[in-house]
Amino acid sequence: MEAPPAAQRPWRPSQLVTLLSDYGLDDPYVGIVKGVLQRESSALRAVIDLTHGIPPGDVAAAAFLLERSWFHFPSGTVHVAVVDPGVGSARELLLVEARGQALVAPDNGLLWPLLASEPGALVLRADERAPRAGASHTFHGRDRLAPLAARLCDGTPPAALGAPCADPVRLELPRVEQDAAGDVLAEVVHVDRFGNLITNVPGELLARGRGPDWRAEWQCCVGGERFALVRTYAEARPGDPVALVDAYERLEIALREDSAARVLALGRGTRVRFQQRKRSGA
Amino acid sequence: MEAPPAAQRPWRPSQLVTLLSDYGLDDPYVGIVKGVLQRESSALRAVIDLTHGIPPGDVAAAAFLLERSWFHFPSGTVHVAVVDPGVGSARELLLVEARGQALVAPDNGLLWPLLASEPGALVLRADERAPRAGASHTFHGRDRLAPLAARLCDGTPPAALGAPCADPVRLELPRVEQDAAGDVLAEVVHVDRFGNLITNVPGELLARGRGPDWRAEWQCCVGGERFALVRTYAEARPGDPVALVDAYERLEIALREDSAARVLALGRGTRVRFQQRKRSGA
Amino acid sequence: MEAPPAAQRPWRPSQLVTLLSDYGLDDPYVGIVKGVLQRESSALRAVIDLTHGIPPGDVAAAAFLLERSWFHFPSGTVHVAVVDPGVGSARELLLVEARGQALVAPDNGLLWPLLASEPGALVLRADERAPRAGASHTFHGRDRLAPLAARLCDGTPPAALGAPCADPVRLELPRVEQDAAGDVLAEVVHVDRFGNLITNVPGELLARGRGPDWRAEWQCCVGGERFALVRTYAEARPGDPVALVDAYERLEIALREDSAARVLALGRGTRVRFQQRKRSGA
Repeated sequence: MEAPPAAQRPWRPSQLVTLLSDYGLDDPYVGIVKGVLQRESSALRAVIDLTHGIPPGDVAAAAFLLERSWFHFPSGTVHVAVVDPGVGSARELLLVEARGQALVAPDNGLLWPLLASEPGALVLRADERAPRAGASHTFHGRDRLAPLAARLCDGTPPAALGAPCADPVRLELPRVEQDAAGDVLAEVVHVDRFGNLITNVPGELLARGRGPDWRAEWQCCVGGERFALVRTYAEARPGDPVALVDAYERLEIALREDSAARVLALGRGTRVRFQQRKRSGA
Repeated sequence: MEAPPAAQRPWRPSQLVTLLSDYGLDDPYVGIVKGVLQRESSALRAVIDLTHGIPPGDVAAAAFLLERSWFHFPSGTVHVAVVDPGVGSARELLLVEARGQALVAPDNGLLWPLLASEPGALVLRADERAPRAGASHTFHGRDRLAPLAARLCDGTPPAALGAPCADPVRLELPRVEQDAAGDVLAEVVHVDRFGNLITNVPGELLARGRGPDWRAEWQCCVGGERFALVRTYAEARPGDPVALVDAYERLEIALREDSAARVLALGRGTRVRFQQRKRSGA
Repeated sequence: MEAPPAAQRPWRPSQLVTLLSDYGLDDPYVGIVKGVLQRESSALRAVIDLTHGIPPGDVAAAAFLLERSWFHFPSGTVHVAVVDPGVGSARELLLVEARGQALVAPDNGLLWPLLASEPGALVLRADERAPRAGASHTFHGRDRLAPLAARLCDGTPPAALGAPCADPVRLELPRVEQDAAGDVLAEVVHVDRFGNLITNVPGELLARGRGPDWRAEWQCCVGGERFALVRTYAEARPGDPVALVDAYERLEIALREDSAARVLALGRGTRVRFQQRKRSGA
């Protein structure tokens, strides 16, 4: 027997809320959202910042980082993601239930990559009651999303807070392609603080159907250069870029104890090819 | 019957403490303050960072952001604000009770804008017991303010921790003026992460006594340029600066999907005039 | 009777965990570690960030800041420190119990300065059970340290999670020396957000055996310049650098309301001499 669809499982909040935004930390915007969560929720246990360093308005960056983070959290967690250049316009708020967790965000594509990988998710358009007196047109993180998260945190199931939505706004992140020879055509989708160049290629795509030495069967080509795949940063020689499966479970290009992005002068959007090495005598 | 003055209402802590400082996040100063709060309080539920990105020693920036934030928190919250160039000197610590919340800060003007808007506040000079052995002359956030906040959080009412203070240090933020014609003379008092230029003009000042279309009756003049007032960022055309009521409930100048501060090369201290449009045939 | 060694005191967790890393805050790495702590611990009360702004891979900076922070926390606190250029290599994880607190970190010297000042500490090599399915080679903060901290937080004593380790990796921070004349030869080991130049000299080293006016008996020499020792920032005249005992209980060089590092163009590694003033008629 299959698992019942998301809407029919009981909603059991973990009383944890995560926040992801482009608010930065120099303004009190994030603190104010937390104040509202505390004011509106009686069950809230902890609020966890995913990041507030998303470049202003960069919905694609937020979508990538959220999709690579949310599944590490306990069942019952409520994720609030706000990168919202359309705040105050007619755009709706989306409410998603997947793997026993809930997510709320503007319906601007932020949740699309996550939805694309979770076909069983329950997707709702938030059906808010009449806007409160004094609700702003410019700060829905505080005035609409935090109150919604508080209700989820206090036990109201997602299905009671919205109506099914069949056409959430789509946002396609760069796709991984495979050519006729089996080579993998990828793209750098993120650069982290260490200057690691994170591609859109899942580790398991290169490992699939190969033995434990799968790394030796590939090389990573960028521009005219070729880099070996290794298991850990420590296996690289200083000065030699390498590719490895990273914290996001994606292939990244890294430079031991230095910034690959700076030294190679590469960044988001760089095309990368993972090429199969010719096997002699196979 | 009027509400009794602040001192006579029972103090009911929410067991929440907020922190605002110029400590930054690269040193462990904020973490250490939280360690002391946990060590000294048995009731503490959560500590919320408002911001630690205040420019070093910028008491006016801290005063503006605190005054625009604190009222979003639950009754019983304790706010600790530390921007304190005079740490270790003879300056006193101030302890304020207002709207059922408490605030502690150096008596250097940081709380003045908030006090100016809360005439019913109870203002006390913190009456600390003998300084503890080992208390520093350089880190009162840790050694004096955190222990004070812990006592408030655990139930000691503000009035038990200080003596009334009639002359807290004043710090006047730029005032809004209105000329004979009714135009509003304002100033940019803050620039946020998005490059929005936040003025000192409350939205309700321009809306007062006008209908729902009050925005159409004003224009915002800076240098030789004039900008329309809109309701949301999304109503602006990319490239056209606009003015709108923002997250701080103040009028700000913004540029859709770009930084008004950078593109217009304006910043804190810029003079802004909100001018009434001539109404034809009225 | 002496206190029993650390291993024999019962382990009483405070259910607080602190984090210190070079992860930065722009990626969700820190948030994910907190998600795992919440998922794996049933007792966790709060997670406190010490800092995530350690320069990438700078184990010495992390070691200095951790050693100057941890003792402010309640007994039973678990400190997780991850600056880990050797992640995924053969390096082990260290587990330390000292003063009723626990610390976990890679065995790369990060804990050495703390161990050097805590001769009674219990030092263990973490004896993890078989690595979990899916554990990465690149993110041990999430996959190995957080689960270990969760077990400590939930009551498992350190001694049950590792085997004694007699030879942890050493990392010597710059040492304070004293010459024949009694002058103190020091070094700047950290620069904070305010541009204060923090040396490795404990305040008590200069005060020892002297009266309350010990500051007047010393001067601070850097390059050809000499600075007076004062008690508070406010005692300095703007523009005149001074030395004083700081938030880390170390002597630092500071400039009132300005950055000593910027104005003096000095930084980490600068040599500093604390010289005794000649006392007339002594």
